[in-house]
Amino acid sequence: MSLETVNAPLAGRHARPAGTVVSAGAVEIGGPAVVVIAGPCAVEDEEQLLSTAREVKAAGARVLRGGAYKPRTSPYSFPGLKAEGLRLLARARAATGLPVVTEVMDARHLEQVIACADILQVGSRNMQNVTLLEEVGRCRVPVLLKRGMSATLAEYLLAAERVMAHGNEQVILCERGIRTFEPSTRNTLDLGAVPLLKRHTHLPVIVDPSHGTGVAWMVAPMACAAVAAGADGLLIEVHTHPERALSDGGQSLSPGEFAALMPRLAAMAAAAGRSLA
Amino acid sequence: MSLETVNAPLAGRHARPAGTVVSAGAVEIGGPAVVVIAGPCAVEDEEQLLSTAREVKAAGARVLRGGAYKPRTSPYSFPGLKAEGLRLLARARAATGLPVVTEVMDARHLEQVIACADILQVGSRNMQNVTLLEEVGRCRVPVLLKRGMSATLAEYLLAAERVMAHGNEQVILCERGIRTFEPSTRNTLDLGAVPLLKRHTHLPVIVDPSHGTGVAWMVAPMACAAVAAGADGLLIEVHTHPERALSDGGQSLSPGEFAALMPRLAAMAAAAGRSLA
Amino acid sequence: MSLETVNAPLAGRHARPAGTVVSAGAVEIGGPAVVVIAGPCAVEDEEQLLSTAREVKAAGARVLRGGAYKPRTSPYSFPGLKAEGLRLLARARAATGLPVVTEVMDARHLEQVIACADILQVGSRNMQNVTLLEEVGRCRVPVLLKRGMSATLAEYLLAAERVMAHGNEQVILCERGIRTFEPSTRNTLDLGAVPLLKRHTHLPVIVDPSHGTGVAWMVAPMACAAVAAGADGLLIEVHTHPERALSDGGQSLSPGEFAALMPRLAAMAAAAGRSLA
Amino acid sequence: MSLETVNAPLAGRHARPAGTVVSAGAVEIGGPAVVVIAGPCAVEDEEQLLSTAREVKAAGARVLRGGAYKPRTSPYSFPGLKAEGLRLLARARAATGLPVVTEVMDARHLEQVIACADILQVGSRNMQNVTLLEEVGRCRVPVLLKRGMSATLAEYLLAAERVMAHGNEQVILCERGIRTFEPSTRNTLDLGAVPLLKRHTHLPVIVDPSHGTGVAWMVAPMACAAVAAGADGLLIEVHTHPERALSDGGQSLSPGEFAALMPRLAAMAAAAGRSLA
Repeated sequence: MSLETVNAPLAGRHARPAGTVVSAGAVEIGGPAVVVIAGPCAVEDEEQLLSTAREVKAAGARVLRGGAYKPRTSPYSFPGLKAEGLRLLARARAATGLPVVTEVMDARHLEQVIACADILQVGSRNMQNVTLLEEVGRCRVPVLLKRGMSATLAEYLLAAERVMAHGNEQVILCERGIRTFEPSTRNTLDLGAVPLLKRHTHLPVIVDPSHGTGVAWMVAPMACAAVAAGADGLLIEVHTHPERALSDGGQSLSPGEFAALMPRLAAMAAAAGRSLA
Repeated sequence: MSLETVNAPLAGRHARPAGTVVSAGAVEIGGPAVVVIAGPCAVEDEEQLLSTAREVKAAGARVLRGGAYKPRTSPYSFPGLKAEGLRLLARARAATGLPVVTEVMDARHLEQVIACADILQVGSRNMQNVTLLEEVGRCRVPVLLKRGMSATLAEYLLAAERVMAHGNEQVILCERGIRTFEPSTRNTLDLGAVPLLKRHTHLPVIVDPSHGTGVAWMVAPMACAAVAAGADGLLIEVHTHPERALSDGGQSLSPGEFAALMPRLAAMAAAAGRSLA
Repeated sequence: MSLETVNAPLAGRHARPAGTVVSAGAVEIGGPAVVVIAGPCAVEDEEQLLSTAREVKAAGARVLRGGAYKPRTSPYSFPGLKAEGLRLLARARAATGLPVVTEVMDARHLEQVIACADILQVGSRNMQNVTLLEEVGRCRVPVLLKRGMSATLAEYLLAAERVMAHGNEQVILCERGIRTFEPSTRNTLDLGAVPLLKRHTHLPVIVDPSHGTGVAWMVAPMACAAVAAGADGLLIEVHTHPERALSDGGQSLSPGEFAALMPRLAAMAAAAGRSLA
Repeated sequence: MSLETVNAPLAGRHARPAGTVVSAGAVEIGGPAVVVIAGPCAVEDEEQLLSTAREVKAAGARVLRGGAYKPRTSPYSFPGLKAEGLRLLARARAATGLPVVTEVMDARHLEQVIACADILQVGSRNMQNVTLLEEVGRCRVPVLLKRGMSATLAEYLLAAERVMAHGNEQVILCERGIRTFEPSTRNTLDLGAVPLLKRHTHLPVIVDPSHGTGVAWMVAPMACAAVAAGADGLLIEVHTHPERALSDGGQSLSPGEFAALMPRLAAMAAAAGRSLA
């Protein structure tokens, strides 16, 4: 099934040719400005989260990311701080004014996650978790729906369609790398997904170059390329001490690296006829 | 991460070198005999389910499959009969004596599914649904865990490890086709997964040639090949009227085709030094 | 492009519904009997080749394989003995009476290869080497055309069509593993290719479980599965001292392992209604 | 094998940390300026080639591409004008002053191709055609080596290493899309290959968004993204009448579309701290 033939009456571009703008607090995703979302992969402790939040805000990030519930591959990996992580995110939001995006991985956690988050992330592993999609579809909070590891774009659009069909039209799509035969990187970032999705849906499309490559030094060139390809935003992992991170340290930027990247992204956005939010 | 390096203290072969036998009623999966599980993709109505159940039992199937909750790609596809489908499965079980395997796609449905099923199926889309794995791990009912569409074998083993780490050691693995570049079939059945998994885990390994190919006429040769490769069982879709099926009709055998296949499988099992259960 | 839509007037099944039998000496490939081709990946020296040839013949192999020209990935890997390797193959053929299959990787070598070989192998890397396909198409020697590493089956059929369109109808197809995301094995053996190709072309289809897995202990189960899936033959690497092999030792069987496999293959062939040649 | 572990003493970045600049006539590829190569997929006739050449030159292309020998998947597809196509390329070069890149697919054609071309293209299907790589390695003409359809980056680097090991250090790499499970496009353009290759080799790296997507409207965004990712050049198909093209019309830009793209590329190059050549 290709994007040309998929049946998505709500998510399809024709349903809203001018495009959808998703709002989280004062931040608009899908409008003329490119939005940078940044923060640690996982919330680890108050000091780590707050100092990262302040640093990324100072550098120009408009939304804070941080995982409290972490759906890891191994049952023995750090699972996130869970409810305590959500509390720390709420505190970081209060301290910085940044809206927060965090993952919800079980419908039974929705109430507590919504209390602390401005955008609900549905992760790659749950892109086809039907009942979770339906439940976030019943919420009135924006949803950041990540592409499944090997989802076709038509399947991805249908996952967004499912959320919308349950009433929630505030959906943001996020390309985060697909699985291929290449052993040099964790994933292969599929930037062609950006123009393809922008053509076939009215929903905003952002890119996660951190998971999309798994390699910190590749984040900068691929973030620039994502903006050039037409992405509406970026999701970038930043950690005050990447070498000590409890998850995904190898793909996290330091605050300094992140601050150095922002002017490059601004230049790219300008070259693409846009600006950084 | 390869199977050589994965850390799976519970699921790894070394934990139980003689292998695990999973019991569902009088049926043993993982023992010397090859077990055939058969039935419709989705439970559609009582007549369809009961007549299919009787036909597959007569032909030698030892477990009945049938989907009540169907996690479909499109929100507009038939979602299964849900609770009503479970009731029909219980009735078919009572009528035929066959143990039943059916999918559970949400932890909140577990109680009602367990009431009607002997084996809980976790589907491909939910192979990394962490909380669902944990909840079925807390049950005392065997779990048939299908491989994710593009899961590496190490990731797959770790999903089984998660179920076991929560207390449930009755896990059956099921290769069901992976995603590749080939457009002629729905999936590419990865039969190499059978000997690889058998070497690296003590859990039973079965094969689903119906989803693994998506093409009814390929089920027979691939089912034979699966037995030759060392599979402990098969999961085969059978529908009394494949051309009228509400889902996956194109890959379903008719009862007559299924009955014709069984002696071929018995011959293959014998050639492999085993028997059909 | 799928096998359903590909335009292959010469190679398509409809062109010769009864199937093609390719003859090499007294050996028929594509007839009722399953043919085992065996030998070392590369010809290394006379002693290695002759003793392997004698051992595989004694165990029941009907054709000898051995690489004289080796198209390696690295320019620093052993490139084969070239012309000297061909001479050794001719000597092994004379000593054992086994027909020989060896790779030709350049049209300029055709004359010398044909002088020493009964079947010309075109390797995976050259499946779309257009002029080489055309030149072997002008020969009157059978061609064993290996599937490209990521060739779709339609592309594969069109490569065979090209050979046939230049006059040579003696083409044998060989599935040898495709490239996927799985890191535990060198390739993923695509056994579904066997029934698919058998349905869509009249050409014989064999399987190479040695390259298809890259792991010696997987050769036996996958060779059995290939026969069960309907393969017309097998291509198996055997080396007198796998641990000292100059190429692909990790996937080579010892003569003893090969001899132990043959009765299992015979049992599988019998269960499939065939025999070993 | 990953780029971290591959043994490429000649092609590896350490061998020439400052990077290699490949010269074709007055054009330098791999220097500070981004070079645009454009022209038709196949040379079809004098009028088509000359008018396309004049148009792309006027719009800022610095090298003319055009296929005379076309290695097509089907033996029944247009194979190119061959020697006559080479003559037309030489004429277009004389008329416009643009250096010419064209594919060589057989070592036996090298002499005639070199007579008409400034850069020898080795196509994707021949990335592991060992003897062709060795023969172009013996030439003193730059080589544009396209990545194989499913080549890992380490394999790709080793193909370049083979050319260099035979004496020719003037090698340009070209990412042109890889094969994945996505049916919406012909290939998936792997832009992460650009920074990865630039880090691990000193050779220039260009991108072919025409083959990389197979869709004309995607060429512009992906060309921009390629420049943002750090590409040293672009290879873009332009045809005076895409709808009448004998090959790959669906991915060709019209001269007007190409002319409209060039200022966008210039802006991107500037934002990346470079310029268009």
